[in-house]
Amino acid sequence: MPASSTAPSNLASPRSAAELAAFARALLEAAAMPADKADAVADILVEGDLLGHHTHGLQLLPTYLDEIAHGRMTLDGGPEVLSDQPAALAWDGRRLPGPWLTLQAIAVAGERAARLGTGTVSIRRCHHIAALATYARRVAERGQVLLLLSSAPASASVAPFGGARGVFSPSPIGFGFPTGGEPVMVDVSTSITTNGLTSQLAREGRRLPHAWLLDEEGRASDDPAVLQPPRQGSIQPLGGMDHGHKGFGLALMVEALTAGLAGQGRSDPGPRWGATVFVQVLDPAAFNGREAFAAQMDWVAAACENTPPARPEAPVRLPGRAGLKRRRQGLGDGVVLQPAVVQGLRQWGERLGVATPWGG
Amino acid sequence: MPASSTAPSNLASPRSAAELAAFARALLEAAAMPADKADAVADILVEGDLLGHHTHGLQLLPTYLDEIAHGRMTLDGGPEVLSDQPAALAWDGRRLPGPWLTLQAIAVAGERAARLGTGTVSIRRCHHIAALATYARRVAERGQVLLLLSSAPASASVAPFGGARGVFSPSPIGFGFPTGGEPVMVDVSTSITTNGLTSQLAREGRRLPHAWLLDEEGRASDDPAVLQPPRQGSIQPLGGMDHGHKGFGLALMVEALTAGLAGQGRSDPGPRWGATVFVQVLDPAAFNGREAFAAQMDWVAAACENTPPARPEAPVRLPGRAGLKRRRQGLGDGVVLQPAVVQGLRQWGERLGVATPWGG
Repeated sequence: MPASSTAPSNLASPRSAAELAAFARALLEAAAMPADKADAVADILVEGDLLGHHTHGLQLLPTYLDEIAHGRMTLDGGPEVLSDQPAALAWDGRRLPGPWLTLQAIAVAGERAARLGTGTVSIRRCHHIAALATYARRVAERGQVLLLLSSAPASASVAPFGGARGVFSPSPIGFGFPTGGEPVMVDVSTSITTNGLTSQLAREGRRLPHAWLLDEEGRASDDPAVLQPPRQGSIQPLGGMDHGHKGFGLALMVEALTAGLAGQGRSDPGPRWGATVFVQVLDPAAFNGREAFAAQMDWVAAACENTPPARPEAPVRLPGRAGLKRRRQGLGDGVVLQPAVVQGLRQWGERLGVATPWGG
Repeated sequence: MPASSTAPSNLASPRSAAELAAFARALLEAAAMPADKADAVADILVEGDLLGHHTHGLQLLPTYLDEIAHGRMTLDGGPEVLSDQPAALAWDGRRLPGPWLTLQAIAVAGERAARLGTGTVSIRRCHHIAALATYARRVAERGQVLLLLSSAPASASVAPFGGARGVFSPSPIGFGFPTGGEPVMVDVSTSITTNGLTSQLAREGRRLPHAWLLDEEGRASDDPAVLQPPRQGSIQPLGGMDHGHKGFGLALMVEALTAGLAGQGRSDPGPRWGATVFVQVLDPAAFNGREAFAAQMDWVAAACENTPPARPEAPVRLPGRAGLKRRRQGLGDGVVLQPAVVQGLRQWGERLGVATPWGG
């Protein structure tokens, strides 16, 4: 049945996470990705959608497939090990799929953490790693703590505080930890907003909710057009005009732990889409025990959730909890993707000869 | 000569850092602190003043001496080792002097990092640790990277995003790293402002420059009076009303790495002034080498400093560089303390029979 004959209502009906992951896996395998890597990428992308991070879910898959088609994503082999010390490893990721590489690094770091207390892996030339929260959940559910940092050498949209041009990427800090109940998953960029949101609003001709950007003269702006070449505007660091020196400091921290430890970053010629990544796993068992950790964090989590809210209709929410709730619902009821995303995936299905969950 | 006969001009004239440190050491030793601990505390406090962090310099010494006088700071012995894994240690600090304990932890973490790649020490029941930047400089100048986090279980002034009561302390993130030139030293609280500044302005009946606080109803406020008991206002997390969910996430991260790993914190009864501390040293030599690290960070540092500034008279400044410049000047020209600080120190000199650098 040709794609065009499928009614929009069918496109918008939910598909199970397992079905979506199998489809993503089949597309990646049809594009010559080995099965273990295809598994990892499919799982992480679907998990992004389950958690509600749709910009970092299956929406990315057509772009990943395009990277493969253009020879910009490596499919075979593993990372080159540049250093392997007991508690510190450095890998050259060779532009292998980011979700697979990150899960590999988490496995090694987690094993070292279980044995030594902590484990840290620095990855240069990693391909894009999708949604950080997807990794934090896995580590936290094993009782360990994850610190995951990423910078994108090819992106220079975020200004240092006081500057009027971009230097940094909206480098995120991902952090996950276990509690006695559900994990807490933090995923915050060190900039006020992201490239993704600003690009989308620019395409739609819309403004940002606040003046989170700077024009070329360093004046606060809510117009994403200032970021579109040849214009040279930038995104403000976390804290903005008011206290953006703090976001600037955090951006430097992320840059040191990613590009600095990786020995590869903005200074290197020919940067392409991809990431420099810092993966650290800490095991509370090596400090004062997992129970003591959970007891402290349960207390803090309850203190936050029980704080009288500023707006009665909006109680304090712990980071990641809404995503985990969406995930539970999605695992039961299935996932609905945006029609444009489905359309992009169907086109790749046709091109690679893979049947889609939406027919066609 | 009685203190009252000394002219204010004399009080305000500079004293050398060495002279001030010797005086601080003598006061602490007169209060029965062993010499090695007195050395460490004196050096870190004077270094705070040298870097320009006067609220975290010798201004703290009278309070430290008062803590000793009231039996709230332990003077003898070392930390109790609760766990000693290869790359992770947990100590009970027994309320020993914070600067001394932190330097001890940095020494152990630095040695582990040199041997294993990274070293991490969690400290519960540490006394106050003064200015974070003083530690970052020392580690960075040895070619290593320091991540230093601190939370204060007795302080609950910072609200979770969306909440109208304090839960967290203005828990700082300290981070220092080497470059080919001077180190970069980041020291940022995960709240917009600090307890110190707000208390000072409250005493003076002044307002904050922006509405960085919340009243009991969760409304933004610039009036530090909302924080003074019995009022129950709070400080907004980094990012404020606009994007304070990011500061909230970072506060949870600091809480997990300090109180969580320490297995001690807000949930424990009878908290006193003091800190729960996370010390991590990473050695770039264990990843891709110190030269590659410095090359990346030199490039980023230059990119920041060369960014066209938003205001031509205010070029982009890297965190810590102004402090290091002040320190060089202070080491040459001496340090001037505020008259009220000198007065407090003189009173302790008289009480403990220690001659002060200002006479009397």
